[in-house]
Amino acid sequence: MSEQEHLYDCIIIGGGPAGLSAAQYLSRLALKTVVLDKSKTAGALAFTNKIENYPGITKPLTGAELLDIFRAQAVTFGAEYVESQVIGALLDNPIKEVFTMEGVYKGRSVIIATGAMGRKPSFKGEKEFLGRGVSYCAVCDAAFYKDKTVCIVGESDEAVKETFVLRRFTDKVSLIAQTDNRKLRDNPQLIAQDIKVLINKRIEEIRGSEIVESIVLVDKLSNEQEILPMDGVFMYLHGNTPIVDFLNFAVDISDDRCVITNRMMETNLEGVFAAGDVTCVEVRQVLVAASNGCVAALSAEKYLHHRKRRKYVWG
Amino acid sequence: MSEQEHLYDCIIIGGGPAGLSAAQYLSRLALKTVVLDKSKTAGALAFTNKIENYPGITKPLTGAELLDIFRAQAVTFGAEYVESQVIGALLDNPIKEVFTMEGVYKGRSVIIATGAMGRKPSFKGEKEFLGRGVSYCAVCDAAFYKDKTVCIVGESDEAVKETFVLRRFTDKVSLIAQTDNRKLRDNPQLIAQDIKVLINKRIEEIRGSEIVESIVLVDKLSNEQEILPMDGVFMYLHGNTPIVDFLNFAVDISDDRCVITNRMMETNLEGVFAAGDVTCVEVRQVLVAASNGCVAALSAEKYLHHRKRRKYVWG
Repeated sequence: MSEQEHLYDCIIIGGGPAGLSAAQYLSRLALKTVVLDKSKTAGALAFTNKIENYPGITKPLTGAELLDIFRAQAVTFGAEYVESQVIGALLDNPIKEVFTMEGVYKGRSVIIATGAMGRKPSFKGEKEFLGRGVSYCAVCDAAFYKDKTVCIVGESDEAVKETFVLRRFTDKVSLIAQTDNRKLRDNPQLIAQDIKVLINKRIEEIRGSEIVESIVLVDKLSNEQEILPMDGVFMYLHGNTPIVDFLNFAVDISDDRCVITNRMMETNLEGVFAAGDVTCVEVRQVLVAASNGCVAALSAEKYLHHRKRRKYVWG
Repeated sequence: MSEQEHLYDCIIIGGGPAGLSAAQYLSRLALKTVVLDKSKTAGALAFTNKIENYPGITKPLTGAELLDIFRAQAVTFGAEYVESQVIGALLDNPIKEVFTMEGVYKGRSVIIATGAMGRKPSFKGEKEFLGRGVSYCAVCDAAFYKDKTVCIVGESDEAVKETFVLRRFTDKVSLIAQTDNRKLRDNPQLIAQDIKVLINKRIEEIRGSEIVESIVLVDKLSNEQEILPMDGVFMYLHGNTPIVDFLNFAVDISDDRCVITNRMMETNLEGVFAAGDVTCVEVRQVLVAASNGCVAALSAEKYLHHRKRRKYVWG
């Protein structure tokens, strides 16, 4: 593929309501657009069981169903959708570079729409060993753990998926659930791949000296403590802070760690926009995120065409 | 009906995407909400033939179909929907009063969502005789024209509907269309009510001394001029300026005549919010209007419950 073919008009990071809405508007304006989404099942909306107050739906939907509609619309209008985790970005040049494990995406503009399911380190030792045995991205760091002993903490679909990623590098993989999740324990795919599933455990501490050496668990039923030797601990628990880590402060971030934008969803960098829960928004609603995505898209279009006024698109 | 029964938590003026979205969120929060809508067919969305880029719809819809869905959702959640034109409002007390031809609505908060199909006077004599024979509201002023000679200028469904309102007060009613609208000329309901339909006319001038006395028309085909004696000229042509006349500057209006709000859709008056195209919004999109309505609703809820933080409602 030539360099030219790889140059997008807009790279959208995140495939939730904000990112997919932006993709829909941009691709309908005939702009070459790609959505890079960590996982179809990892965002806040994907976790929502029942949506009934989104204006325009004729019956209650699950969050995943609503996302499927958003995604299908964006793809129908011509946007590319790629399931891939973004691990870094260079945003201050006219051609922006977005890094994934599979390669670099180049674009003339970027919309950051990674949502707010990020997590602050909270377990004892978690923050201390972050980057030294504690990781939030299996797909990024799995290769460092070839034949090592690793665990994933979490029980979401995403956690299970990432467990399989790690399993390709080592056969000493366990999955730790904090609830009495028997369905997870009996998951035939996990059993088939010889992945040990520990359920109903409290994470007491992550221990080590220079790097992680063990994890301390307490069984919630028996209250018994066990110390497991461990080289890597992969956290797949979700919180509610904006996901901005991968940006490494490439754009202005508030003290609350949200991306600062104006009303037109412009960040401090030219050609870089943000939308949805990753921004310093007061209302976290699917509808507001989608609207932000629309505004970001129209601002990106304006930027790309060096126009003074945004294009109004009714209908 | 007792005074108490008439007191709404929120009165929403306007039944487009902003107003109906606000109604949906407020009523789902169990707040007593009424939507006062001039007409189901009068707003910008109702005039939109095909909508396909509204995130969440699974097939292209007409604007009217999308509005029907919005309205059904709001009503299902418990909002009242009333087709009634608002002609004035007193907004600076804790109990706000909104005036319609059918009576006064009282509410603890108000959301202004009247859209931007307003029109600046543009025909010769139109501005001069506004309120002295020229009117933008048949339902408000029809009673002043008992047995007088009146005309409606326009050809929308709303214009036709208002023609019938005038017909109840006088039998000298004509409807003037600026295009070669033969379907309108052959409308059996208009014929049945003995309403004269003039099509393909240019409005040259509205003439009078103290009050309107005649209207000057030019036939677009023959170029012939005719002067019709006239007491009342009712304008039902749509433009694209925010509809704020009825407010009589009760809230802060910009030089461009849009309602000024902050990001939370609060106006300068306590308990008065605005949403959608009537506000000083840079992007006129159904999605953005609906999102504004959602934010206005959550701000109203916060105001009504004297809370410091807005309620987040996922799902």
